[in-house]
Amino acid sequence: LPGLVRAWGQARRKEDSRFMLTGDQYKSSLNDGRRVYWNGKRVTDLTGCPALKSSIDAVARTYDAAYRPGDRAVSELLQLPTSADALAARMSLHTEWLTEISFMCVMTALTAASRIAARCPERAAAIRAYVDMLQHQDLRITECITDAKGDRSLAPGKQHDADAYLRVVERRPGGIVVRGAKLHVSHAAIGHELLVMPTKAMKPDEGDYAVAFAASVNSPGISIVTVGEPTPGDPRDFPFSSREFVPQCFVIFDDVFIPDERVFLDGEPDLAATFAHALGLWTRAGGLVNLADDADCLVGFAQLIAEANGLDKFVHIREKISDMVIHATIIRATLEASLKNCERTTDGMMIPDELFANAGKYLHAANWSLMIRHLQDIGGGSVLTSPSISDCENDEIGALVQNYMRGKQGVDGRYRLRLLHAIRDYTLTSYGSYKSFSNLHGGGGLYAQRLVTRNRYDMERAKRLALKAADLSGAAP
Amino acid sequence: LPGLVRAWGQARRKEDSRFMLTGDQYKSSLNDGRRVYWNGKRVTDLTGCPALKSSIDAVARTYDAAYRPGDRAVSELLQLPTSADALAARMSLHTEWLTEISFMCVMTALTAASRIAARCPERAAAIRAYVDMLQHQDLRITECITDAKGDRSLAPGKQHDADAYLRVVERRPGGIVVRGAKLHVSHAAIGHELLVMPTKAMKPDEGDYAVAFAASVNSPGISIVTVGEPTPGDPRDFPFSSREFVPQCFVIFDDVFIPDERVFLDGEPDLAATFAHALGLWTRAGGLVNLADDADCLVGFAQLIAEANGLDKFVHIREKISDMVIHATIIRATLEASLKNCERTTDGMMIPDELFANAGKYLHAANWSLMIRHLQDIGGGSVLTSPSISDCENDEIGALVQNYMRGKQGVDGRYRLRLLHAIRDYTLTSYGSYKSFSNLHGGGGLYAQRLVTRNRYDMERAKRLALKAADLSGAAP
Amino acid sequence: LPGLVRAWGQARRKEDSRFMLTGDQYKSSLNDGRRVYWNGKRVTDLTGCPALKSSIDAVARTYDAAYRPGDRAVSELLQLPTSADALAARMSLHTEWLTEISFMCVMTALTAASRIAARCPERAAAIRAYVDMLQHQDLRITECITDAKGDRSLAPGKQHDADAYLRVVERRPGGIVVRGAKLHVSHAAIGHELLVMPTKAMKPDEGDYAVAFAASVNSPGISIVTVGEPTPGDPRDFPFSSREFVPQCFVIFDDVFIPDERVFLDGEPDLAATFAHALGLWTRAGGLVNLADDADCLVGFAQLIAEANGLDKFVHIREKISDMVIHATIIRATLEASLKNCERTTDGMMIPDELFANAGKYLHAANWSLMIRHLQDIGGGSVLTSPSISDCENDEIGALVQNYMRGKQGVDGRYRLRLLHAIRDYTLTSYGSYKSFSNLHGGGGLYAQRLVTRNRYDMERAKRLALKAADLSGAAP
Amino acid sequence: LPGLVRAWGQARRKEDSRFMLTGDQYKSSLNDGRRVYWNGKRVTDLTGCPALKSSIDAVARTYDAAYRPGDRAVSELLQLPTSADALAARMSLHTEWLTEISFMCVMTALTAASRIAARCPERAAAIRAYVDMLQHQDLRITECITDAKGDRSLAPGKQHDADAYLRVVERRPGGIVVRGAKLHVSHAAIGHELLVMPTKAMKPDEGDYAVAFAASVNSPGISIVTVGEPTPGDPRDFPFSSREFVPQCFVIFDDVFIPDERVFLDGEPDLAATFAHALGLWTRAGGLVNLADDADCLVGFAQLIAEANGLDKFVHIREKISDMVIHATIIRATLEASLKNCERTTDGMMIPDELFANAGKYLHAANWSLMIRHLQDIGGGSVLTSPSISDCENDEIGALVQNYMRGKQGVDGRYRLRLLHAIRDYTLTSYGSYKSFSNLHGGGGLYAQRLVTRNRYDMERAKRLALKAADLSGAAP
Repeated sequence: LPGLVRAWGQARRKEDSRFMLTGDQYKSSLNDGRRVYWNGKRVTDLTGCPALKSSIDAVARTYDAAYRPGDRAVSELLQLPTSADALAARMSLHTEWLTEISFMCVMTALTAASRIAARCPERAAAIRAYVDMLQHQDLRITECITDAKGDRSLAPGKQHDADAYLRVVERRPGGIVVRGAKLHVSHAAIGHELLVMPTKAMKPDEGDYAVAFAASVNSPGISIVTVGEPTPGDPRDFPFSSREFVPQCFVIFDDVFIPDERVFLDGEPDLAATFAHALGLWTRAGGLVNLADDADCLVGFAQLIAEANGLDKFVHIREKISDMVIHATIIRATLEASLKNCERTTDGMMIPDELFANAGKYLHAANWSLMIRHLQDIGGGSVLTSPSISDCENDEIGALVQNYMRGKQGVDGRYRLRLLHAIRDYTLTSYGSYKSFSNLHGGGGLYAQRLVTRNRYDMERAKRLALKAADLSGAAP
Repeated sequence: LPGLVRAWGQARRKEDSRFMLTGDQYKSSLNDGRRVYWNGKRVTDLTGCPALKSSIDAVARTYDAAYRPGDRAVSELLQLPTSADALAARMSLHTEWLTEISFMCVMTALTAASRIAARCPERAAAIRAYVDMLQHQDLRITECITDAKGDRSLAPGKQHDADAYLRVVERRPGGIVVRGAKLHVSHAAIGHELLVMPTKAMKPDEGDYAVAFAASVNSPGISIVTVGEPTPGDPRDFPFSSREFVPQCFVIFDDVFIPDERVFLDGEPDLAATFAHALGLWTRAGGLVNLADDADCLVGFAQLIAEANGLDKFVHIREKISDMVIHATIIRATLEASLKNCERTTDGMMIPDELFANAGKYLHAANWSLMIRHLQDIGGGSVLTSPSISDCENDEIGALVQNYMRGKQGVDGRYRLRLLHAIRDYTLTSYGSYKSFSNLHGGGGLYAQRLVTRNRYDMERAKRLALKAADLSGAAP
Repeated sequence: LPGLVRAWGQARRKEDSRFMLTGDQYKSSLNDGRRVYWNGKRVTDLTGCPALKSSIDAVARTYDAAYRPGDRAVSELLQLPTSADALAARMSLHTEWLTEISFMCVMTALTAASRIAARCPERAAAIRAYVDMLQHQDLRITECITDAKGDRSLAPGKQHDADAYLRVVERRPGGIVVRGAKLHVSHAAIGHELLVMPTKAMKPDEGDYAVAFAASVNSPGISIVTVGEPTPGDPRDFPFSSREFVPQCFVIFDDVFIPDERVFLDGEPDLAATFAHALGLWTRAGGLVNLADDADCLVGFAQLIAEANGLDKFVHIREKISDMVIHATIIRATLEASLKNCERTTDGMMIPDELFANAGKYLHAANWSLMIRHLQDIGGGSVLTSPSISDCENDEIGALVQNYMRGKQGVDGRYRLRLLHAIRDYTLTSYGSYKSFSNLHGGGGLYAQRLVTRNRYDMERAKRLALKAADLSGAAP
Repeated sequence: LPGLVRAWGQARRKEDSRFMLTGDQYKSSLNDGRRVYWNGKRVTDLTGCPALKSSIDAVARTYDAAYRPGDRAVSELLQLPTSADALAARMSLHTEWLTEISFMCVMTALTAASRIAARCPERAAAIRAYVDMLQHQDLRITECITDAKGDRSLAPGKQHDADAYLRVVERRPGGIVVRGAKLHVSHAAIGHELLVMPTKAMKPDEGDYAVAFAASVNSPGISIVTVGEPTPGDPRDFPFSSREFVPQCFVIFDDVFIPDERVFLDGEPDLAATFAHALGLWTRAGGLVNLADDADCLVGFAQLIAEANGLDKFVHIREKISDMVIHATIIRATLEASLKNCERTTDGMMIPDELFANAGKYLHAANWSLMIRHLQDIGGGSVLTSPSISDCENDEIGALVQNYMRGKQGVDGRYRLRLLHAIRDYTLTSYGSYKSFSNLHGGGGLYAQRLVTRNRYDMERAKRLALKAADLSGAAP
């Protein structure tokens, strides 16, 4: 049986396998010879690895939920939105992270294809063929963008270590050989494919670094180090930690051969940033529905704990909640504005407006830590110091614990405890820290998000407005 | 002739005068016996008063521009938007302040009418008839809401001075007599009518304070103190101050008789806040297009002066401009979201979404002082200390001044000087201070704006989201 | 032997035991019959409990380091500063948390004693005798202030559950009986004594709630629930988590008898806040040296990782570090100002200035989350996603991991990895979350810290300054 | 008489005139042939010029108040502090701006002298001799630092206009000839002397720009354009505007000869920044007492108007006042810390600690606009819209105006009006705008202030702290 499964894994990219996967088939497909490491050791059984198990199970459940039998069936999770409503609907359809990343990769690849098509029609065609394969084989793919980078003050071509940015080290008939590392790749170890692209614009003499391609996770020469593991805990005390964990992967390309039909860019430095820009659009805009809901969820927690504590009428509490409400309202406004101003590509897909999406993403990232501070401030010390639910069940002290944990009349101690624990888990455990950190860095860090907002803004119009207001319309140089 | 004009002024409310006004007719119409005071003296000639002259001229120009001859012609400036596009178009049509205030009063009155119609159908009908009169006589009207308030910690009915909030002191057959003062009434002295409403919700025993009505400015018993005056100055040095000034008025109602057909609310405390809420919606939403443009204009000034100084590539300058760009983008996002979610009243008018509009208004008010700080910071000391344009024209030193005021190559000294002066005038003169202050207080102060945002927010949805996320959907009290 | 040890534990409060403790004696002394619970179970062996073990070891090491033999020896860690220099020195002497808390309790008790001495001389004497006993028996004590509180909108005397605030339920000859719970008590389970005080001012009819006293941890009726446990991990990856953990305790007083000589306040509501105010002073001022060092440490991490990444000359990075430098400088300025303005009590102790100390504490609490955001922003995604040190030691991929983790020339991958891990541990693990949360809530939450700052500020002087500036000195009411 | 006065003016620099000046003598001394321009015209009578008159009067009053007769008497206003207490006392002694600037120039010159003495002993001696002359002739001097700068992205030596930075155009026996302009020079037109220095560090090939010297205001080739004028107004309505005005001057050096004994630096680019650094220290530290008092004054206004309005118990008002209190407390803490850590120069003068002073200056500049927003927010719309005091005196409406302007019981309308007007004048008139703007730009703009704070901070200590905390002390590169 294992041999069979493995054979399936190896065979899965064959042209004739055009059908959707079940959860079990997904799990089997991971047994394909990939090289994954964790805490210093090679992982031989992915589905049993503590760092990966819960994520694999979640992905499998998503496969099962979406599964439709039949040859050439295509998962709705990988289909392209072709109307404003479909775009809004797809963006609202948060399943689990690997699936969402796969959708964003597909959209990124096609957006990039439409932007390079004029200059490189055959590369654009390769991308479209590749996406068609992904859709028909129902694969999951993660995006590899950030390089090791070495000394950040030096350009890729000036590094002490030429591999600090991933590059082409050899060009052979039929393909290229690449070397380097890609960092911060969520879920790389449990997907099927990697979409690899340059981290930024390249200079004319950096052609070897201007390379984008797709690689199967089990390609010879690829090693993946996965970082971290979920914290075990009573789900009543840790509702989030016990449900969701995103393994962060460090992907090493040690002279990996990429066949021509999977090379999407090679040696055209002036197009290097096209893929990153398309990815930026989709990472920032694609998650905006979730960010807006996260912001609302935070307001909800604040209001619930304020009510449970009997503090909801206190002005200083209400003022903090007002801050949170205003934050949530801005984020939603940017979402609404981004959807209202969405545009159709030449390929017929709808893409959200980037200026508004980016501003929303930035504001969420920039303000999240303050919103968390507000929630913790409103929640009070008991967010951290409350006994566990199992303490409530102790024969000797359980009843007293529950009594003393009661809030205002009608709020029983057990409910209030669980609410406090949920807030702790959302903000203070490694789950909470991960959420906070990925809010900050997802989509490229505050500086990049500010830069993109400025670049997408209509500065010429703003200058005209100012000149007109100052009666200087004709006087400007 | 003066007698004739005055007669016209007195006659203008007659049922048979249904035509639009020219600028001259508007000026004549102000000569109607109104009692206006300035700097301790009665103003006998409004059009010659330094505090009012420039505003009256601006209003007259707007009348002339909108004028269409013909019986029963109605100005487009006072017509109601009945589609989302018409709403957006009307909100973009900034003419001058008195006209905009008049439009907001009309919308406020009709919005309130639709909200009280079920309870008080005859009051609603009176409002609609009154609006029809305003439209057909082409009148200008200002809104009187803020009371003197006395001790803010006491309710209207508990004040040491019963008149601290405007109230009904007598009810006679055919009408009521009111007493009190209304503060912060922009342009009251140069409009025709006053729309008077309670400043807030009233308690059951405060029926005398629950009074809304319309009064002609020249009604016996009404006195208006107008505050401030435009600063004179060379328009090349002061492009804003020399163009726009908003007289702030303090309106005293010293036992004024209001006929029944002009009474829109009397003695129904639970409806007292309806008018204020409608006004709040229109003041905050109505001005949002301008706020969004103001925010863009500020960005424009910052970019222009940075370019003129050769500083536009400096990272710390770009970062400040990014802050301003992000601010401008949020404000515009709230505008877009407010328009996208506009709603139709039972009367067929379109009204913008209040949650988004209010959040935008608040953010603009809250952040304006920081945005101004950024602009002044980018502009540098020369914003304040630059020689005047007339210094450039002095035979002895003019050429040197111009030379030394040059910025980067191609930016001549005279252009740069005027740009610096424009920034000074926009931010540092009494014009700039007025703009800043009215941004802060227009629509009711930060606290009120925060309160309204919280009240309009869907808190129940937020709580459901949080409970669901924490697996507590069934456990909440 | 165990019997003997236990006997020692029980005997330790005898008048004749006036000597310092070694680490081993401290450990033995914990075996005194105390009732401690963790994760729903009674803890029978404290020194073996995963939640307590590392803290007990740290305390024992501190005992050993401070130990001096000899009858009547008193630990320098519990002695009172009697000069400005001694105060500064003692405040700089951070040992470990339980010892610091004990010192703060001693100072709090004596500060309160000096403030109630005029009204209640015998209570003040009892406090001084008790402190003398603590010093001569070398005991550790924690402070119990926060009550369960029930409905926060109701006063202690109006609660649905009369025990929501700890209270006297019986007054007997020789002592009182108390009931209630005290929350957020750091280290309660591993100290010897509890200093219990009202959480706030009480109203005239709340005499039963105006109670302060000392209780031995093993007093009949006291149960302690300890919360949380340290996360195990490689110290090279988790330098902070593996070193420090502060158990948070929930202390239940189920009808505990307190003998008269240990009752420090009973039935005088108007003095109820005295203890809390004294504690507030010492919690906020006492930790200020550490806060100032923490702020500097954060700057250090930011600069180190910026340098390692080759980013230290980038303006946007430098600007973020400037923010952190300015924050650190303010905190240190408040410390300097607080020490410069320290005052001597009637008992001869020096106490730091409260206004400056409190402002510093507040600013640290309020800005910490932003400072952490800056550090994480500067550090980049690798703060979260970096392979472990053990990955570096893997035969197959270790060398590659180290290569790709190198920063600018001369910065080797292993050092950079450990620096990134340290930043992760300082900001993203439960250690980091605890630090952040206790920064926020230690000393009573932002609202309380703001309130105290305002109360300690010389408002009358500020009003005089303003009146004089406005030429209104004689005109004010 | 005019001829005599003029002769005195020309003679005043003679070695034998070593006595203090009276106010009248000061006024006469201005009649020395200086070339001052205002609004495009040459000013022939300085004491009668609307832009200068009130400032000249204020300076004259200060002369009279400090005057002591007698040969060789030296004004205490120009003496050097030689102890920590004297430093604190002198810094608290705010007289009027020109005198304070003169004191800062003296301290700057001597601080720079002590820093260049090793390299250029004869230049240091020239400075000391010059300061001795200033003291004994009781002169007033202003500092000229900011150049015209042209294109800010280019170094002085790379400008399109070589004169964009002031430079030596000729070196003759006995002196040098300089050309260029200096901007933002407060009070230049009404002082006697100018202390001129390079605006920043210079590169090796920019020796001609590395020039510092003193020039008499009436030196041939110097022209001064003075900008702005005080707004006239009833002092009861405008207590600040009617009292204080700081003329901003644009100083042109059109080939001015400077004799050798007044040249303090020439041709040593590596010392060019020494003068600017010394000036930075004194501008930032010297004004810190006033900044601390300004911050307190702002709190006072907020509290007074809140009380007058009956709003002082409202939580949202108290929270805003808390923000202001915290701000004022930080500024004062930096002052206290700067004085506590003052240092003695080799010349025996005391200089305040620069790190703390600079942080305080920065925080005041950065937060002032928010503090003003708070004050205006608390004050309400009446800050802008209140009738004038003369309206209170109108026979017809004065009594009503006063009645309606009353606040809470006991607060009469006239007092409240004047308080509101004072707040308007402090924050909304051109006086207020000037205050706000000079807070921002005085001492060099936010970026410069941040830079200096970072440069003065002990970064190496911070790095050591972080490395030690992370157990990496030995591992750093």
